[in-house]
Amino acid sequence: MTHPLDEAVRFTTTSSDDSRAVLRAATHPAYNNMVGPFGGITAAQLLAAVQQHPAAQGNPAAQTLNYTSPVEYGEFDIHLELVQTNNSNQHWNVRITQGESTPVTGSVVFTSERDTFAHQEARLPQVPGPEECESAPPVNDLRWLDNYEFRFARGAYELGREHDDSESVYWLRHTPSRHWDAPSLASAADSFFPRIFRRTGKPHPAATISLTTYFLGTPEEYASAGEYVLCQGRAQRFGGGTADQSARLFSSEGHLLVSTHQLTYFRG
Amino acid sequence: MTHPLDEAVRFTTTSSDDSRAVLRAATHPAYNNMVGPFGGITAAQLLAAVQQHPAAQGNPAAQTLNYTSPVEYGEFDIHLELVQTNNSNQHWNVRITQGESTPVTGSVVFTSERDTFAHQEARLPQVPGPEECESAPPVNDLRWLDNYEFRFARGAYELGREHDDSESVYWLRHTPSRHWDAPSLASAADSFFPRIFRRTGKPHPAATISLTTYFLGTPEEYASAGEYVLCQGRAQRFGGGTADQSARLFSSEGHLLVSTHQLTYFRG
Repeated sequence: MTHPLDEAVRFTTTSSDDSRAVLRAATHPAYNNMVGPFGGITAAQLLAAVQQHPAAQGNPAAQTLNYTSPVEYGEFDIHLELVQTNNSNQHWNVRITQGESTPVTGSVVFTSERDTFAHQEARLPQVPGPEECESAPPVNDLRWLDNYEFRFARGAYELGREHDDSESVYWLRHTPSRHWDAPSLASAADSFFPRIFRRTGKPHPAATISLTTYFLGTPEEYASAGEYVLCQGRAQRFGGGTADQSARLFSSEGHLLVSTHQLTYFRG
Repeated sequence: MTHPLDEAVRFTTTSSDDSRAVLRAATHPAYNNMVGPFGGITAAQLLAAVQQHPAAQGNPAAQTLNYTSPVEYGEFDIHLELVQTNNSNQHWNVRITQGESTPVTGSVVFTSERDTFAHQEARLPQVPGPEECESAPPVNDLRWLDNYEFRFARGAYELGREHDDSESVYWLRHTPSRHWDAPSLASAADSFFPRIFRRTGKPHPAATISLTTYFLGTPEEYASAGEYVLCQGRAQRFGGGTADQSARLFSSEGHLLVSTHQLTYFRG
């Protein structure tokens, strides 16, 4: 059985040359969200589209996506532009178009791994293991949540209950089972429910405006991360209709796989 | 006397319509760095270019820039594309071209402030005030450093001395004096010396690959932030030729003005 994420990254090439491509893609019903698809699957699709281009060199290192308007369910075009290839890094611009609309723009940086100093400063949050945390979706009745199992160590959303801070820490695994790789981490990076829900205890209208993810491990490390990754994230400031979010995804052994940041819109 | 930053954001419009513009700009010698201009001034220029466009609505909320190759000293073109205007936010794509080269690409999001829940979670680091910290440039002999005064509370670069972590906290002000606003904060967001210098005590070849800044305050708050802002930043992981950096700039009163994240390249 093919995992829905792997189905979602199957594209038809409309045109392609050394530095550009247009791919025909489609939203996957398994990732339907409130309005349009889950932003994480869109991130996975755009990252995979670059990976699949014959000119791609190295591995994903950074991705920024701007969600300008909802992607409509159905087919869309992915546009890739290779801006620059250097010895150790490569810069791509990406965008989604749907008819006259451009619901997503962004960029992807690939880097070639080199032998350098290595050290991880970030420490794995000390929380109970996944088997000690109850499995429950963070919010109700969104189709894309069925692709993940969430086990909150702390910071679950509790309707009607305000909290002093917005931090959540949870174990996340794929359902059905799947290995981790850069596209699936790009997707998981957007798996946090809006931080404002935790802070105020209210289901504010909210959406990601801009999402940046840094891929800090190696493909081998992602593949051997095991079933669960530990997701830790919080906002630093809410106000004027926006909030930031900074988050980290660790392997259960403590490797920092990605750091991810976003600006979210909210009302109320 | 005009501050060099304000000189740097004077552009000549080559072409402009409702959704696009090409502006002729130039590097400013006061911001010369090792190779090409300081990345922060480039960020300020691209943000100011969007602000100056007649179609711009609201205030800067997010900026991502990808530094694909060094900007050459001299003139360059700034290309603006308005991708989408919504009720509360507006998405621009930006790029710099210099002849056949595209040394910088990126995006800028503007948002219109709305009356919502507001709360700041991030706390001002508890450090001595600027008058109690010695004024000294973080590294030697780079022209752009003359536009700032750095007063390190902790985490200065010490050649030959390794440290357990890469955190730096310093007070920063403009020299000559200037108020704070979104472009100058965009610039200051890139004022951190590479975190690898602090960690290993060695002057590694290093450069910013991708820079994202979220503007979390209001224009009034920036303007009234006072002379010094407190800059706190650290890496979370080094390895394979890249490192991340996450940082925050606070007013001396404790307002979180911007959060800023980058992926840096390094050797050695």
